[in-house]
Amino acid sequence: MKIWIRMVTVIIILGIAVSASAAVRKEIRIPDIAGYRTLKCDFHMHTVFSDGNVWPTVRVDEAWREGLDAIAITDHIEYHPHKEDIAVKHERPYDLAVSKAKDMNILLVKAAEITRDTPPGHYNALFVKDIAALDNKDFLAQIKAANDQGAFVFWNHPGWKQKADESYWFDIHTQLFNEKLVQGIEFVNGDGYFLDAHKWALERNLTFIGNSDTHSPMDPPLENNANHRTMTLVFAKDRSLDGIQEALKSGRTAIWVEDKLYGRAEFLKPLFEASVEFCPVYRRNGVTAMLEVRNKSDVPFELGRKGNAKGLILEPNSTTILRPTVNKESGKAEIIYEVKNLLIEPGKGLPITVTISAP
Amino acid sequence: MKIWIRMVTVIIILGIAVSASAAVRKEIRIPDIAGYRTLKCDFHMHTVFSDGNVWPTVRVDEAWREGLDAIAITDHIEYHPHKEDIAVKHERPYDLAVSKAKDMNILLVKAAEITRDTPPGHYNALFVKDIAALDNKDFLAQIKAANDQGAFVFWNHPGWKQKADESYWFDIHTQLFNEKLVQGIEFVNGDGYFLDAHKWALERNLTFIGNSDTHSPMDPPLENNANHRTMTLVFAKDRSLDGIQEALKSGRTAIWVEDKLYGRAEFLKPLFEASVEFCPVYRRNGVTAMLEVRNKSDVPFELGRKGNAKGLILEPNSTTILRPTVNKESGKAEIIYEVKNLLIEPGKGLPITVTISAP
Amino acid sequence: MKIWIRMVTVIIILGIAVSASAAVRKEIRIPDIAGYRTLKCDFHMHTVFSDGNVWPTVRVDEAWREGLDAIAITDHIEYHPHKEDIAVKHERPYDLAVSKAKDMNILLVKAAEITRDTPPGHYNALFVKDIAALDNKDFLAQIKAANDQGAFVFWNHPGWKQKADESYWFDIHTQLFNEKLVQGIEFVNGDGYFLDAHKWALERNLTFIGNSDTHSPMDPPLENNANHRTMTLVFAKDRSLDGIQEALKSGRTAIWVEDKLYGRAEFLKPLFEASVEFCPVYRRNGVTAMLEVRNKSDVPFELGRKGNAKGLILEPNSTTILRPTVNKESGKAEIIYEVKNLLIEPGKGLPITVTISAP
Amino acid sequence: MKIWIRMVTVIIILGIAVSASAAVRKEIRIPDIAGYRTLKCDFHMHTVFSDGNVWPTVRVDEAWREGLDAIAITDHIEYHPHKEDIAVKHERPYDLAVSKAKDMNILLVKAAEITRDTPPGHYNALFVKDIAALDNKDFLAQIKAANDQGAFVFWNHPGWKQKADESYWFDIHTQLFNEKLVQGIEFVNGDGYFLDAHKWALERNLTFIGNSDTHSPMDPPLENNANHRTMTLVFAKDRSLDGIQEALKSGRTAIWVEDKLYGRAEFLKPLFEASVEFCPVYRRNGVTAMLEVRNKSDVPFELGRKGNAKGLILEPNSTTILRPTVNKESGKAEIIYEVKNLLIEPGKGLPITVTISAP
Repeated sequence: MKIWIRMVTVIIILGIAVSASAAVRKEIRIPDIAGYRTLKCDFHMHTVFSDGNVWPTVRVDEAWREGLDAIAITDHIEYHPHKEDIAVKHERPYDLAVSKAKDMNILLVKAAEITRDTPPGHYNALFVKDIAALDNKDFLAQIKAANDQGAFVFWNHPGWKQKADESYWFDIHTQLFNEKLVQGIEFVNGDGYFLDAHKWALERNLTFIGNSDTHSPMDPPLENNANHRTMTLVFAKDRSLDGIQEALKSGRTAIWVEDKLYGRAEFLKPLFEASVEFCPVYRRNGVTAMLEVRNKSDVPFELGRKGNAKGLILEPNSTTILRPTVNKESGKAEIIYEVKNLLIEPGKGLPITVTISAP
Repeated sequence: MKIWIRMVTVIIILGIAVSASAAVRKEIRIPDIAGYRTLKCDFHMHTVFSDGNVWPTVRVDEAWREGLDAIAITDHIEYHPHKEDIAVKHERPYDLAVSKAKDMNILLVKAAEITRDTPPGHYNALFVKDIAALDNKDFLAQIKAANDQGAFVFWNHPGWKQKADESYWFDIHTQLFNEKLVQGIEFVNGDGYFLDAHKWALERNLTFIGNSDTHSPMDPPLENNANHRTMTLVFAKDRSLDGIQEALKSGRTAIWVEDKLYGRAEFLKPLFEASVEFCPVYRRNGVTAMLEVRNKSDVPFELGRKGNAKGLILEPNSTTILRPTVNKESGKAEIIYEVKNLLIEPGKGLPITVTISAP
Repeated sequence: MKIWIRMVTVIIILGIAVSASAAVRKEIRIPDIAGYRTLKCDFHMHTVFSDGNVWPTVRVDEAWREGLDAIAITDHIEYHPHKEDIAVKHERPYDLAVSKAKDMNILLVKAAEITRDTPPGHYNALFVKDIAALDNKDFLAQIKAANDQGAFVFWNHPGWKQKADESYWFDIHTQLFNEKLVQGIEFVNGDGYFLDAHKWALERNLTFIGNSDTHSPMDPPLENNANHRTMTLVFAKDRSLDGIQEALKSGRTAIWVEDKLYGRAEFLKPLFEASVEFCPVYRRNGVTAMLEVRNKSDVPFELGRKGNAKGLILEPNSTTILRPTVNKESGKAEIIYEVKNLLIEPGKGLPITVTISAP
Repeated sequence: MKIWIRMVTVIIILGIAVSASAAVRKEIRIPDIAGYRTLKCDFHMHTVFSDGNVWPTVRVDEAWREGLDAIAITDHIEYHPHKEDIAVKHERPYDLAVSKAKDMNILLVKAAEITRDTPPGHYNALFVKDIAALDNKDFLAQIKAANDQGAFVFWNHPGWKQKADESYWFDIHTQLFNEKLVQGIEFVNGDGYFLDAHKWALERNLTFIGNSDTHSPMDPPLENNANHRTMTLVFAKDRSLDGIQEALKSGRTAIWVEDKLYGRAEFLKPLFEASVEFCPVYRRNGVTAMLEVRNKSDVPFELGRKGNAKGLILEPNSTTILRPTVNKESGKAEIIYEVKNLLIEPGKGLPITVTISAP
């Protein structure tokens, strides 16, 4: 009789019934930035309808309790190891999950994974309308059909199963990106990071994508979301499917994996500024200022000097005290750091400068 | 060589040095209420200078990492079990701790504990100027001297060591409260709750006080402050010693102990409203509304019907979904609860009514 | 690409390859008792092949990381809410999981759930050979067929969906138990406890059964297994399927749910004695002995006097100090407790007496 | 009124009172080795009587709840920053703590720290009888007086405050060790490791010592003792002060710091073997054996090939499955590892070979 969301009927007053799910959703504390909602999204996951091992509704329950805003179930179009038991019907994962998603206020993106050995590799098509129409032996025809449906398409885990010392960029990729048939690149997949793909994303102005690609059940979130899944942060005009689609097509994303964020400086800088408060509280001897630095987010920030081995960690939801030396003439202190775990390009952290006037 | 706050010199740039304590402070998420800052305070604790077993600076380190705003070290004036080793000097705990408190941005209240068997019992005097002047064998003279110095005085753990079935209110208490020599009452002390004293606080309009009364080292805070110490929430006009003193004299406080808050409805109601957001997200069948209830604080809230055994818990920093039935004519749902762990009098939770218009 | 058991090839030496699963199994510390292995078993759970929502292999992965010895997958014979997508084949869950179970050293019991409204209710048949042969509209024929296959049969969650104030024992139950067609009773199911069924188990000498009845993914085990699932402890002659079957038929079990054990004194007493060590360490004043009490198991034990509200908790894997008063003449101290959470009948804890000679 | 060990009177039966401390001691699971008890010891810590900030009894409470067997309070003979408030009396920390230590079954070693700038540096003298007799301006006279009292003396944190690129071995050290005036060397102090001192310990056959050197309160132990303090494991003939003294003089120790053990192979090898069980459970295809590896201790073990970046972690109190390839002719598999975190010399892990006959 155990079900993981225990349903509890709570109260009946004045003839009005209120019922509640006793399970809770752990909100992720990553702030919005000016003009945009910061939506927490995972656009790559599987169910028993391809090579995953959970029923589609489980993906909604997981997303809800982990604090996500949106997910895409992306079962393989071409790969069905359970087909002896489960008939292949491409639309079923979406159809089975969409009602629960609406109930839980999770945005469910209709999607599928086009699956080939590399080259060309795997591609997720989001916001498709008719998945069966993509079931075609001609790879390029598939990709074009997805685009014809208005889909946003990205290349999954580009270096997967590729030799470490050989390039995994092929002519087909030149074609796909030159013709804008593929608009994004998943250079973080689970805990795997593809450095070359990160460079290509910068060179070709592709949308940054990071996902869990989970096949199995997800563990429940810990306090502070310390075990959060890899996800794409989408900076959207509003919290809606349309909002996500527009943001993806415009390249407004960042990737959160373990303790790192990968993104362009134009997004990571306001994200850092919305997360961290610098409060001068006290000055003594005319020389040293005391400064409380408060990190209001679930992301730790590692402040360090370029090339420095180990920086100072601003722990999530915590305050650290800095003691900068004040310039005697100006009465000011200038604090210059590289935020080493906010990566604006491979190996390069976000530079920040904070000037304080000590009180 | 291990010291619990490891000092780390972090960076020198442009001739400006910044140093930092690597230890972190876990902020407590209990919001401000309209017009007031919600300050987290503990006004009762001991050091080796009376019957505690830590050096005074330890109390500042602990307060800082636990996210407190203010503390009072209240060593006994009359009780010194360590006097064979430590000379009795009443001002020393404050004098030894005040510089570190300033560095850590902790407000340190100068204070002492007047200590007699019951009756009359123990009394803390906060905001005293000269503790030695209170060292007097005449109890009433002590209390008056404290008042002459402008102190705020409260009765500590009133029922401590008293027989369960006998009243511990004596004539001296009538005198002390009638003459306004004592302005507050510590009806929660550690995990001890004194129900009669709670009633007296309501009857006589005394300031509600709850403290740790710790003698030993404090354990470090867990995530979400789940092991937080018993403390007094002070609703102050600003974050300053004067702000606290004014609020205490005006009775603007509440007590946070384990999962409960004790306070007057005029403070607990806005505190609940600033902590919890009700967001209608979806309506279906014209009958059931879907409602996200988001608790942004570190306090769990237990919603229940009066007399109901077990309510619905809104977990800290989490979201719960409610499904109220919509009145078909008005298009509205009215949600009526008692917040069972926000106690406005003994055994009585805060009533709340939320009316939503389902979208 | 993320899979929850990451496979790591570790080493190749001397032409001999060793590979390992990096995932770990958290062993449960509940000791063996004299003559028997204490096997940790869950005989009730579901998969996508009936109304569960995970693939059968997930049940093996979960059992392994939670430290179980044996499981039974018990999909409903009569209830298939996913039949639109998954063809009904009763043997499939076992067939799909058995190879992985062998690899992970998990004993997999072939089983199924016979499913009727009450009366008669739901029944699990363990150690069946041919599940399809049980698919029969005649309930009694099903139960008999299971017995003919040598199955061990128990009544599941007897009071489920029954009215609180009416008996849920019907004539069919008299028949089933009198004819020994059903040998056990699951009076703990998830966190539900059926007090009447506990009494019937004692009156009729039935095998005590407790299971998770999980339909959804299980959360991973915490340290000390504090979130352990409800399970049946089987006291078996050896760790094998035959060993379990013999023990179940002989009634050698206990139930572990949350902080409680339900069992007969003949099993709970040696389990307590194998878990807890009483070590007199020191005697002073000729009056007080010091006694270290070491709990080497994952089960907390609550020692109390009969009728006492709250006892002393011997925390798991921890040591507590007792200070009994020594009888001056005998030089001994006698410690008499009820172990309040080891329930030998409804509301009655296991009595223990420990006599120590203070050193 | 809060005290960290709440005293609870539990039960009175037959005129015999039993009282208990409700606080618990978390036992450390590191097994004994053949012929010896493995005692968990910390021989370096401070109190308010020198530059620490807790009362001496706190050190006993901490040791007890952390599962230690023995401690030495080692306040400085020459350094007393609190002397304005606390009179210098060398024997007081021991005298104040010894009764509580006896009550808690903690072995308290009488000790002191001889404190000079380097050279010669700091030295702890354990098992002294008269500390005041060591209070002498002549350093060598101090060390000799300690030896005359039968003390075991070791050099503390040898490289502390020394330049990274200069040797910190001076002539005085040659003299001290040649004349056997100093018998041990603390090459791990808190989280600091002194590589040169490790080498000297091996070259000169000195007793390995590792301690916390704590000055502040210790945090309470986490599950599995994951935050354990740095300590010396003493392999003693029995659990007594004499047993420890004999073992220290005979060099039978190892050091536990974070996830590492430093020790000689003659002790680390049996410790590993007593902690880890290799159980062949299953063989398939005549090629691959399945092997459960069970780590019954609180120490993780990292198995790797020499020079390998990252090994396989055997997590504490957990089981891992290995899949070695079986030699077809012999029917055996040989597993050869280096236990990378059991360091028998700088940078060199303990080699182990396990031969299994697959069943």
